[in-house]
Amino acid sequence: MSPRRKLSDARRRQILKAAVQVIAEKGLCDTGIKDVADQAGTSPALVIYYFGTKDALLAEALAFAEDRFYAHTADAVAGMASARDRLVELVRCSCSVGEAADDFDEWVLWLDLWARAAHKPDVARDRQAMDRRWRTTIGEIVRQGQAAGEFAPVDADAFALRLAALIDGLAILVVLKDPDVTRERMFDLCMQTCAGELGFSWTAADQELLTRPRRAAASG
Amino acid sequence: MSPRRKLSDARRRQILKAAVQVIAEKGLCDTGIKDVADQAGTSPALVIYYFGTKDALLAEALAFAEDRFYAHTADAVAGMASARDRLVELVRCSCSVGEAADDFDEWVLWLDLWARAAHKPDVARDRQAMDRRWRTTIGEIVRQGQAAGEFAPVDADAFALRLAALIDGLAILVVLKDPDVTRERMFDLCMQTCAGELGFSWTAADQELLTRPRRAAASG
Repeated sequence: MSPRRKLSDARRRQILKAAVQVIAEKGLCDTGIKDVADQAGTSPALVIYYFGTKDALLAEALAFAEDRFYAHTADAVAGMASARDRLVELVRCSCSVGEAADDFDEWVLWLDLWARAAHKPDVARDRQAMDRRWRTTIGEIVRQGQAAGEFAPVDADAFALRLAALIDGLAILVVLKDPDVTRERMFDLCMQTCAGELGFSWTAADQELLTRPRRAAASG
Repeated sequence: MSPRRKLSDARRRQILKAAVQVIAEKGLCDTGIKDVADQAGTSPALVIYYFGTKDALLAEALAFAEDRFYAHTADAVAGMASARDRLVELVRCSCSVGEAADDFDEWVLWLDLWARAAHKPDVARDRQAMDRRWRTTIGEIVRQGQAAGEFAPVDADAFALRLAALIDGLAILVVLKDPDVTRERMFDLCMQTCAGELGFSWTAADQELLTRPRRAAASG
């Protein structure tokens, strides 16, 4: 890779990070290309050169945030032998429990992505690919758990579809700060569903252990 | 009520119907007040006089569509003695199975509402009130079914929260035309969850009967 290409990649990531921040704060309707350029310390022309349209920037910003999420989650589940533990960790990461309070902010980009996907075929295609990746990730863990005798023999794809939909529906409430649903409650509601359908135990002690701040859990 | 006030109410409904159509078709970002005025056969000034802003128009258009939904659902469940039947009908209406293909179109307004609610406190407040009304409606049927011995003694509020979130998450996929989820599949996935958690039976025959077009079901 040439030095010029490396520089471009760094700049591209910088613009995507800025786009995540600005769109999460203002919403897509009220975000201009110039706002993103200002936040990234670059020019609107360069942002347009890289991404073309605001919709494309949104889709790429979310794909970028998703890739960070998968990398983070892959780290978190690495070395976990049990499928149950991997599923719990996957759900915990998607609920951002035990993480910094603003880790949930990126969820707000999904709201814009869904709204735009209804009207823009390119955004719809990107949405579909990201959702399918997520459901496949859930489905694989379920199949692994079934092969290991940890989980009940439910339809893994139907389960993945339902769990992913439940997470989306609850995440809407959390990101919109609905007083009835905190991140911790979202996590518990999802885990009750997983435990009930896949046939493993999920107790208040499990919930308490896993909703502690990560640092406290590590040191205490 | 004076004749003038009656005329105003009729005009207001006309504008709201037009807003539902235009926002569903173009999305909120790309909808102008003028588009709604043109569709309603009135002037932008009058639309602004009644609603103030595009966000307020969106929230009122969705509240208007929701009221039609509740009135339609109330008609559909009137006279059903069993809580199970009322719950099935409520879920069927929210999945629009057996209805005209475009009956699901109003769901797309929710995507815009969620996206705007993240940034506009007024829209957030309206969203919360509509969601709470929906969860209360579900929770009441669950309690009635529990009192009648039809349903298992689950936590009715937690169940309502999970079912409402599941419906939202699946509706996103249906409205975005995800190839993995039709309205009929959405209905079946929701009913599997209801039947499993509340402890009643839900068979392929139930599903088949209820996903037939309404007219065919009535005549045959």
